[in-house]
Amino acid sequence: MGERRIQHKDLRDLAASLLSSAGADPAESARVADILVWADLAGRSTQGVWRLTVILPRLRDGFMRSPSSPEFIQKTDGILLVDGHDGFGQYIGHVAMARAIESARTTGVGLVAVRNSNHYGAGAYFVQMAAREGMVGFAFTNATRRVAAHGGISPIFGTNPVTFGAPLQSGDSVLIDFSTGAMAGSVIRKATETNQPIPMGVAIDERGGPITDPKEGLRATLLPFGGVKGYCLSLLVEVLTGVMTNSLMSFQIPTMHEKKQAASRVGHVFLVIDISSLLPLEEYYQRMEMLIAAVKNSNLQTGITEVMIPGETRWRNYKSQLAQGVLLDCKTIESLSSLASEYRLSIPWK
Amino acid sequence: MGERRIQHKDLRDLAASLLSSAGADPAESARVADILVWADLAGRSTQGVWRLTVILPRLRDGFMRSPSSPEFIQKTDGILLVDGHDGFGQYIGHVAMARAIESARTTGVGLVAVRNSNHYGAGAYFVQMAAREGMVGFAFTNATRRVAAHGGISPIFGTNPVTFGAPLQSGDSVLIDFSTGAMAGSVIRKATETNQPIPMGVAIDERGGPITDPKEGLRATLLPFGGVKGYCLSLLVEVLTGVMTNSLMSFQIPTMHEKKQAASRVGHVFLVIDISSLLPLEEYYQRMEMLIAAVKNSNLQTGITEVMIPGETRWRNYKSQLAQGVLLDCKTIESLSSLASEYRLSIPWK
Repeated sequence: MGERRIQHKDLRDLAASLLSSAGADPAESARVADILVWADLAGRSTQGVWRLTVILPRLRDGFMRSPSSPEFIQKTDGILLVDGHDGFGQYIGHVAMARAIESARTTGVGLVAVRNSNHYGAGAYFVQMAAREGMVGFAFTNATRRVAAHGGISPIFGTNPVTFGAPLQSGDSVLIDFSTGAMAGSVIRKATETNQPIPMGVAIDERGGPITDPKEGLRATLLPFGGVKGYCLSLLVEVLTGVMTNSLMSFQIPTMHEKKQAASRVGHVFLVIDISSLLPLEEYYQRMEMLIAAVKNSNLQTGITEVMIPGETRWRNYKSQLAQGVLLDCKTIESLSSLASEYRLSIPWK
Repeated sequence: MGERRIQHKDLRDLAASLLSSAGADPAESARVADILVWADLAGRSTQGVWRLTVILPRLRDGFMRSPSSPEFIQKTDGILLVDGHDGFGQYIGHVAMARAIESARTTGVGLVAVRNSNHYGAGAYFVQMAAREGMVGFAFTNATRRVAAHGGISPIFGTNPVTFGAPLQSGDSVLIDFSTGAMAGSVIRKATETNQPIPMGVAIDERGGPITDPKEGLRATLLPFGGVKGYCLSLLVEVLTGVMTNSLMSFQIPTMHEKKQAASRVGHVFLVIDISSLLPLEEYYQRMEMLIAAVKNSNLQTGITEVMIPGETRWRNYKSQLAQGVLLDCKTIESLSSLASEYRLSIPWK
């Protein structure tokens, strides 16, 4: 059994049905399914439908809730606080980013802080929402502890990604979305499937020695990327999403490996700037094209055929998989089949 | 002739007198002197009074202006645009950050975009202004082209630093301020003085080969730090400060090595979030102390004696040099002496 292409609609329908069969609110289920499948379409399957194998048991065990009925507390003209009530991170993230966009339309810059949420998946999804509205957007989230401070061995920070999006005239967007750890946790999990060794400088053991076995890497502490600069970014994200939202801080969030499970109570921050409040959108697009042309016209290093704009690969994947179907690996297909039979659902592609 | 300690007041007085003797507005001169000496006090002499050797000739040649009479254009409740009129970057940055703080006090989050400014020096200075007011602050600036895109050889971006500050109960602040290039340009300039080789992976020649000679490094293209992630951050900063401010983009800013000089027309963005609009400041401080305790209590890697909080070294330097005087290297002292005699000023420490 190998990889297989599945039509994105079939995938989304199954994902939504699985969620609602597990007791989730139908509207929330549809939204979460959309966002999971978006990640698969964009070629980031680590944040795709595979996640249902984590989400559904946590929903069943009461650590996630749906309907979540998020609570909105308008703090100032520019700042809204959302209590996610342990809802799906993808859903809460969507609602929060939508409000940040609304707020930016009025005040020029809008910030939405979220407490008591869960892992929100592909942050790039949220910032492309802002980009579609002609705005630049940031998304920040903390996560269960994985990453050491620079010079330390103990896990303190989550992989605390930095996410940024900016619109392009083509309708695509610049999408920046990277872990401030030396490797995303989900990429290591992927490596365990093929037993691919993880590179040096990514994971360390309890005495600070290097770990390259991906299975050991799964529970190991990660180093920050780029040394002290990556540590600075992990800390920055923690101040925004852990300290300022009054949610849990990464080092307080229970890990998936702990016996005693509890709600994740993750914090997010979404920040949106309305471009047209600074310059006409047409002028912005022209300037972006100039910048991209300068980057694309770079002389190239040996072995490089093209300088890529962040997000370019995601949008290429997105369009081709929208047409041809989403390429899923056999393990994901098996997991979905087994979940479907558990909830007595028929599999659309059989 | 070796290093020497100079009282910070003497240093500031001389810097201010030099600027006003060169024709700068006295109030602007005093502000710029303050910010230059702050950088020296914090131990970041690359952004300190040494810079007068660059600033004064550019002022004399008309590429910088003082008084600059910055123009303020309120775009929305949360966004202000400042035209710096080719004024001193330090001065324009101070004025802009002060307005961002004011704006955050009203709307919770304030953004000030600046066009037509100059190199603003130590970004950490601006974000500590926000921290002193109980706010977190970001500062972004572009700069003349030095840094390649990931996979490229041509210089596209400035060292486009990312700067962030957050207050601490002690009165100090978390100060994050790093170049998104593999090394700050000013650090390479410093290395030329001692002829210290620069490490591999920092600078490349026109065919992409490594450069380690600091003198060659001065004009060489730099690589982004941390590979593709550093490139993403350089681009992010360029979108905010180059594209959206409608100033010059890094690749358009004339370098100091070009024969035909012109105004730099650098762009900055300052973003401030008022913490107390999210949670009581007391609670924020307690949470920050918890986070810092978790970081400080990390098990340590071999050879490390303490995990540092970003900004901690700067504040230690600041306090000790405020008391004992600023340690200046002989080259800086010579430059100041020669500028003083050029403008017929007496040297306060002689």
